[in-house]
Amino acid sequence: MEHNRARLKILPVIMCGGNGTRLWPESRESLPKQFIPFFGSHSTFQMTVDMLTHDLFEAPIVIANCSHRFLVFEQLKEIGRSAEIILEPVQRDSGPAVGVAAQLASQRARDAIVGVFAADHVIENRDGFIDACQAAGRAAGEGFIVTLGIKPSEPATGYGYIKRGEPVLEDSEVRRVVAFVEKPDLATAEQYVADDYVWNAGNFIFRADVMQDELSQWAPKIYRSSADAINKSISDLDFVVLDKNALLQAPKVSIDYALMEHTQRAAVVAANFGWSDVGNWGAVHELSTRDDHGNAVRGHGLIVDASNVYIRSDEQLTTVLGVNDVIVVTTSDAVLVLDGKQCNKVKHLVETLKTSNRREAIEHRRSHRPWGYYQSVDEGSRYQVKRIVVKPGARLSLQKHFHRAEHWIVVRGTAEVTRNNEITLIHENESIYLPIGSVHRMANPGRIDLELIEVQTGSYLGEDDIIRFEDAYNRL
Amino acid sequence: MEHNRARLKILPVIMCGGNGTRLWPESRESLPKQFIPFFGSHSTFQMTVDMLTHDLFEAPIVIANCSHRFLVFEQLKEIGRSAEIILEPVQRDSGPAVGVAAQLASQRARDAIVGVFAADHVIENRDGFIDACQAAGRAAGEGFIVTLGIKPSEPATGYGYIKRGEPVLEDSEVRRVVAFVEKPDLATAEQYVADDYVWNAGNFIFRADVMQDELSQWAPKIYRSSADAINKSISDLDFVVLDKNALLQAPKVSIDYALMEHTQRAAVVAANFGWSDVGNWGAVHELSTRDDHGNAVRGHGLIVDASNVYIRSDEQLTTVLGVNDVIVVTTSDAVLVLDGKQCNKVKHLVETLKTSNRREAIEHRRSHRPWGYYQSVDEGSRYQVKRIVVKPGARLSLQKHFHRAEHWIVVRGTAEVTRNNEITLIHENESIYLPIGSVHRMANPGRIDLELIEVQTGSYLGEDDIIRFEDAYNRL
Repeated sequence: MEHNRARLKILPVIMCGGNGTRLWPESRESLPKQFIPFFGSHSTFQMTVDMLTHDLFEAPIVIANCSHRFLVFEQLKEIGRSAEIILEPVQRDSGPAVGVAAQLASQRARDAIVGVFAADHVIENRDGFIDACQAAGRAAGEGFIVTLGIKPSEPATGYGYIKRGEPVLEDSEVRRVVAFVEKPDLATAEQYVADDYVWNAGNFIFRADVMQDELSQWAPKIYRSSADAINKSISDLDFVVLDKNALLQAPKVSIDYALMEHTQRAAVVAANFGWSDVGNWGAVHELSTRDDHGNAVRGHGLIVDASNVYIRSDEQLTTVLGVNDVIVVTTSDAVLVLDGKQCNKVKHLVETLKTSNRREAIEHRRSHRPWGYYQSVDEGSRYQVKRIVVKPGARLSLQKHFHRAEHWIVVRGTAEVTRNNEITLIHENESIYLPIGSVHRMANPGRIDLELIEVQTGSYLGEDDIIRFEDAYNRL
Repeated sequence: MEHNRARLKILPVIMCGGNGTRLWPESRESLPKQFIPFFGSHSTFQMTVDMLTHDLFEAPIVIANCSHRFLVFEQLKEIGRSAEIILEPVQRDSGPAVGVAAQLASQRARDAIVGVFAADHVIENRDGFIDACQAAGRAAGEGFIVTLGIKPSEPATGYGYIKRGEPVLEDSEVRRVVAFVEKPDLATAEQYVADDYVWNAGNFIFRADVMQDELSQWAPKIYRSSADAINKSISDLDFVVLDKNALLQAPKVSIDYALMEHTQRAAVVAANFGWSDVGNWGAVHELSTRDDHGNAVRGHGLIVDASNVYIRSDEQLTTVLGVNDVIVVTTSDAVLVLDGKQCNKVKHLVETLKTSNRREAIEHRRSHRPWGYYQSVDEGSRYQVKRIVVKPGARLSLQKHFHRAEHWIVVRGTAEVTRNNEITLIHENESIYLPIGSVHRMANPGRIDLELIEVQTGSYLGEDDIIRFEDAYNRL
């Protein structure tokens, strides 16, 4: 056994899809929940990468949406890790993502053991997780597709359950799946717990060739389109971009529906490592450090005469007076006041906002870019003020605008500014004016972040008034 | 009677003291509730001035706190009214304010009829109000001190009540006060309503000489200090500033405690003109237009699956999901989530914030100045960005700073900028730099508002780093 343990290596594939709309207004399409720190200073994506940094695992592959590529890159850099980054130009569900993972792995070795992990889960006991993965990995080597099952801590109604059968191997914690069952009502959930069912945590460990065989049998469209998407993929900077048309041929369906409910090779390892899928604000509240009244505050909050309250507020002072069981999330452009027992309805609220074309449903005020970020801080009828932060060594595209002039005032660091034919260094406390129509570019040649205030004036200030002549990030 | 009606003139004195802390975070010491629009586009101060613009009344006198003088001036200008503005350099209660009102009126005519009105009440039926004032004015002419009593619409526990006796004059609606009683519990309040008591609305109508006689008898300190405060007052621009030391001799006490509960001349006119003192957010909610679910939104709000909710949010999108009976107020730097049944506790919340030295307890992000306003829109460790609006014809003081340089970018209108010995016109889309230590001044020589973005950089950015050399508003 020791020998086996030492030799087992799992290729981890981290799935970063998903919008996490139930965690609006923090989580939005432009910055979904897996990239947001809810506990401590790291995002669940970063926590997942950290957890997978272990002898049991190879260097990870990350599958993410194209629009989040620089976010993934930055967050990896922040924690000093690297990964192969695979980008989806369109959003699919976990089915196609698992197909892509199996294809990629089989290019390395047909019998590679692959672990597909969600980027938005929290696992408290890392040793327990590693143990479960080891057991699952060994069963995977024998041809089983193993899902991580969680021993229920309560009769939860928010998760699907798995009924378990016989052990797949002698001495193994891994057992056959008898049935996957849908999210139950409370009475049914209590029965499931009594009958030793486990929660379906939606992380899978399998052998690449086994997954490909099973997909070709049960979900041939996913099998073919994943292979196609990889074969026709292109490399772009440090990323691999899957082929859009090929990917569009894959149905938007979860791996549970596409395969797990049909295959005879489904198995489950029952683990108990303190798991949560951080599915809504109630879960965030539960996982936060709470005081004797069940209250928790992240950021600037004050709770008076109330219990079981969660406040998250990065900038503004948020106060709750006399309202129990409430969750309040304050962001720079949107506030949510939510009944703690109706957390899943946030999804519908966001749909309603989208229908009304509210920008806040989708985008944050702060926009991440490959070179850093910008954030709108003030707007008037004919002007806009932005805070811009450019990372050391980074440069914006060479560009011009037809409808706006820009004033740049450097408040930290040094900017190298191209304006038509001249290149100037602008230091802290200096400014430069860019008239309408001037061809310009900003770069940070220094060793620290460049921070500047941009004041735009003009009759039209939309982001689409931009002509790019050259871009270090291929955004022409 | 017609003859009397035609001759009766009341000198209205509007009391603008009070902080309205129960309406935090909108109402703060720097901008208290009487100056805030809660319904429609006008503040209750403006609504009061408008209501008193009637043949029955002389031009009004306004008694306000020194720090609100330009606010009073601006709000009067906005509605095209004027008034004599009397300023208190220290905050006293209604007792001294009534003393000052009586003194001022008696300088015009010993037997002038004075009406003292709160600036933060809402009256829905103006004709009813005028009728009540006429009846009260006639009784005042006969030597009574008449308080406006409100026929209860419900057994409210938030108001003091008045027990009424015999009519003071034949055919008069005005009756003698038998007793003022404190805010009751619900059972007592129900008894009061059954016994035909009325609410004490705290507005008074009296003859100047009668009030002076009664004050000299029952509250001699108030009588003497009010006279002193006026005799030693100074004129400053368009304002009269009461003498601070004299005013400090007056006890901080309401006119009810100081006089009304003792005098034999107390009378009350019972009116039914839809009155509210807008005492807390619950009252604001009640007075707002509500939908079938009892919900009301002012500004940007969305209420889903909840009833009896009030949202006020000027800028951010504020959403309530599934929480009933809640009041949510979002301002640019503070959010309040309040149980609709515990509205009066906001006062304590603000006290708590003051104890923690939270700026949000007292000041808004937007600071009103005689020349216009400024508002902080972004802050970093060594910089600050402000939006500054200067009114046509206005000018800031001639000043310099020891620790900060400033960049001004004009985004609307034209600025006349003095920098050391030069004077320059800066137009829309132009900027100017003011190095540390330069003596500078900004003025708006134009006919429209001047709007500019100021970027401050430096190691210390406090408002107190300012040396003023000359100021059009005597703020040296």
